Amino acid sequence: MTNFFSSNFKLGILGGGQLGKMMLYETRKYDIRTHVLDPNLDAPCKIACDHFQQGNLMDYETVYNFGKKVDILTFEIETVNLQALVQLEKEGKKVYPSAKTLEKIQNKGRQKLFYQEHKIPTAAFTRFSNKAHLTEGITSNKIKLPFVWKSTQGGYDGKGVTVVKYGADLVKLPDTECIAESLIDFKNELAVIVVRNVSGEIKTYPVVEMEFHPEANQVEYVICPARIEEKIARKAVEIAEKVSQAFEHVGVLAVEMFQTQDDQILVNEVAPRPHNSGHYSIEASYTNQFEQHIRAILNLPLGATESKVAGIMVNLVGAEGYTGDVVYQNIEDIMKMKGVTPHIYGKKQTRPFRKMGHVTIVHQDIDKAREIAQKVKNTIKVISNT
Amino acid sequence: MTNFFSSNFKLGILGGGQLGKMMLYETRKYDIRTHVLDPNLDAPCKIACDHFQQGNLMDYETVYNFGKKVDILTFEIETVNLQALVQLEKEGKKVYPSAKTLEKIQNKGRQKLFYQEHKIPTAAFTRFSNKAHLTEGITSNKIKLPFVWKSTQGGYDGKGVTVVKYGADLVKLPDTECIAESLIDFKNELAVIVVRNVSGEIKTYPVVEMEFHPEANQVEYVICPARIEEKIARKAVEIAEKVSQAFEHVGVLAVEMFQTQDDQILVNEVAPRPHNSGHYSIEASYTNQFEQHIRAILNLPLGATESKVAGIMVNLVGAEGYTGDVVYQNIEDIMKMKGVTPHIYGKKQTRPFRKMGHVTIVHQDIDKAREIAQKVKNTIKVISNT
Repeated sequence: MTNFFSSNFKLGILGGGQLGKMMLYETRKYDIRTHVLDPNLDAPCKIACDHFQQGNLMDYETVYNFGKKVDILTFEIETVNLQALVQLEKEGKKVYPSAKTLEKIQNKGRQKLFYQEHKIPTAAFTRFSNKAHLTEGITSNKIKLPFVWKSTQGGYDGKGVTVVKYGADLVKLPDTECIAESLIDFKNELAVIVVRNVSGEIKTYPVVEMEFHPEANQVEYVICPARIEEKIARKAVEIAEKVSQAFEHVGVLAVEMFQTQDDQILVNEVAPRPHNSGHYSIEASYTNQFEQHIRAILNLPLGATESKVAGIMVNLVGAEGYTGDVVYQNIEDIMKMKGVTPHIYGKKQTRPFRKMGHVTIVHQDIDKAREIAQKVKNTIKVISNT
Repeated sequence: MTNFFSSNFKLGILGGGQLGKMMLYETRKYDIRTHVLDPNLDAPCKIACDHFQQGNLMDYETVYNFGKKVDILTFEIETVNLQALVQLEKEGKKVYPSAKTLEKIQNKGRQKLFYQEHKIPTAAFTRFSNKAHLTEGITSNKIKLPFVWKSTQGGYDGKGVTVVKYGADLVKLPDTECIAESLIDFKNELAVIVVRNVSGEIKTYPVVEMEFHPEANQVEYVICPARIEEKIARKAVEIAEKVSQAFEHVGVLAVEMFQTQDDQILVNEVAPRPHNSGHYSIEASYTNQFEQHIRAILNLPLGATESKVAGIMVNLVGAEGYTGDVVYQNIEDIMKMKGVTPHIYGKKQTRPFRKMGHVTIVHQDIDKAREIAQKVKNTIKVISNT
C-alpha cells in the first residue's frame, strides 16, 4: 500500500478554483503533497498546495507534462484536455475520475445518450449539431416550444443553459452543438452526492433540496436533508448510485435530479467532482465531500456520510451594480448568528453574479436553520469598495 | 471597520507548528492574508500562509521586524521574545494576546502568583530562584516531599514538569528557577477553552475531561463533554471565565484544572492560545477553537461554542523504538471507523513521543465515541519505515 501521508507521493489537481481550494484543506489535514495547474496566477489554490503551475487546462502538452510529474491525477473542473488524460492513462498514470468517465460526462449530448442507454430516467431530448439544425427542428415540428436549450460543451454555473419560449429566443443563442430538452414541471430540484472509490466501495449523502426564490426562479438555498417523503429520498439515492456505477466513476459525483409532479425522479445532469450542492457537508457531515473525494481517488476507505446536524447553504454572489475590489458588507452581522460559517473563496474582484463564496448554516433543528439562512441572505451583500 | 477579507490586511503569526497550521485553515476559509515566523524551514505552516519567514522567535530584532510588517500580531507558542512585543505595542501595533497578558503567563511562577492575587483557586506552591534554594527548602522542611516540580520557563508538552518523591530525584533536575507545588489528589483533570475578543465578549466551550491510562498515568483521551456533575461543570466554567477576564486575555485561552476528591476546582495552568484540549472542536463544535481565536483577535463577533456531537481526541505520538521517516501504520483501518478523522501535522521525521498528529472521534453517543476511540488507540501506530 502506498504511503500517502508526509511522504513523497504527489497528487495532481487540474484546476485551482474554490473547489480545489477546499480540497487542499483536506490534503493539508492529511499532509498529502499536491501540485495544482490553473491558468490564473491569482487562483484560490495559489497557496496551500506544494507546487502551483500556471497553465492552460485545455492545452494538451501542458496537461500531459503536468500529469507526468504526479502519481495520481484528478480535476476540480471538467473543462480539461481529455486527450492528455487518455495518453497519461495509456502510459500507466492513474487518473480519477478516469478519462473514459469524463468523456461521457464532458459533452452533455453524450451524457444524455448515456442515460438512455443505461435506462437511467432523464427528460426527453433531441441533439442538434448546430443552430441551423435546431431551427429546422422547430420549423419541422420535430421539437415543440417551450424547451430547455443546453450547449453540449463548456456549460458551467448555469451558463450554456436557457429556456426557449418563442422562436425569437433563438436569435441570441450561439451556433454550437446543443440539445433541446423537454421542460419538466418539477415539484423539487434535488441532488445526491455519491462517492465511489477505486475498489468500488460506494456511499451516498442524504438527498439535498434546492429551494428557489418564489419570484426570481433562482436557487436560494441548498437544504440537507431535503424536506421530501422518505420513499422519494430512497428512490433518488438508488438512482444516484446507479448513475455512479454506470459511469464507473471514481471520486465524488454530484447527481442533480428533478422530482416531477407525479413523483418521478429524472436525472438532470451530473458533475464528476465535489459540487456546490455538497458544500454544506463541511460543517454538517461526518465526512465532508472534499475529504471523501481524496479518500476515493486514493482508494482509501470512505468516511461516514451521515449528518451531525441539518445544514443549509447560501451562495455569495457579486451584487448587481458592483465591480471592483470586493467587500463583504455586514459579514460581522451574520457571524453573530448561531451556526453560521462564511467561506470566502479569495477572488479579489467582484462583478455581478460572480461566485465569491458561500455561507453554511447548521442547526439541530432544520426549521431554525432555514430561518437563520433567510436572515443571512437578507443581511450580507457582496459589493465593491469603489 | 477594517476589511480583513480578500484585502491587504495582514495577520502575523509567531510560530509555525501544528497550532499555526490549523489556524491557517481558518485564515484560508476567510481569505485573510498571513505572515508566519518560525525557525524551521520545514515547519507545518510553511505552505498555506501568504509569506513564510525563517527566524528565531526569541530574538528581539527578528520578532520586532517581523511584527512591523503586519497589522495585527498573534502567536501560537508562548516562547517568543516578550520585549519585542512590548516595543511593538508602544509603537501602536496591535498584539493579541497582549504583551502584558503573555508576561503574566510566560513565567509559571508569576502565573501562580497572579492566581493568588486574584483569588483564583490553585494548588499551594513555593517559588525558588535556583536549585540550591530548592534543596535548602527541602532540608529546612519549608516544603515537604512529594511535590510537583515545575520549571518556571519554557515548559511545554509535559517537559519541565516532574513529580519529586525522594530527595535523590533532585539530582536529575536542571538548575533553574522553579516552583514546588503540592501534589493534588485529583478525581479528574479538566480543561475549559475560553475565548474573549478585543471588546470583551466572552464565551466558553463545554468542560472537557482528560482520561488517563489506568497504569501508565498518561492522558489517553480528551473527552467532550466531561462526564462530570452539572454543578462541577458550572463551577469550572465560572472559574475559567474569571481567569480569562483577570488576565484581560484576548483570543483563545485554555484553562487546565483539577477536580479534587472533595470537588474543589483548582487551576493548574493556562495556555494563551488554541490548545490540544480544544482540538476536538474542529469536528464536534459549531465553531472550532482556531476560528474563534481569529474572530477574537480581529474583534469580530464570537461563534457558538456548543457541540454538534460528542467528541474525543487521541494524540498521535511517535512510538518508542522508531526514529526516521514517519509511517502511520494501520491508518486505513481507523479511517473505516465511523466519525474518525486523522490529523497529520506534517512532520516528516518521527521519534519516540514526538507529537505527530491527533485523531478526533465524533458520535451522537459519547459511550459509542469512547469505544471507537479505544479501537483507534489500539490500531494506529506512528512508526518509521527504516
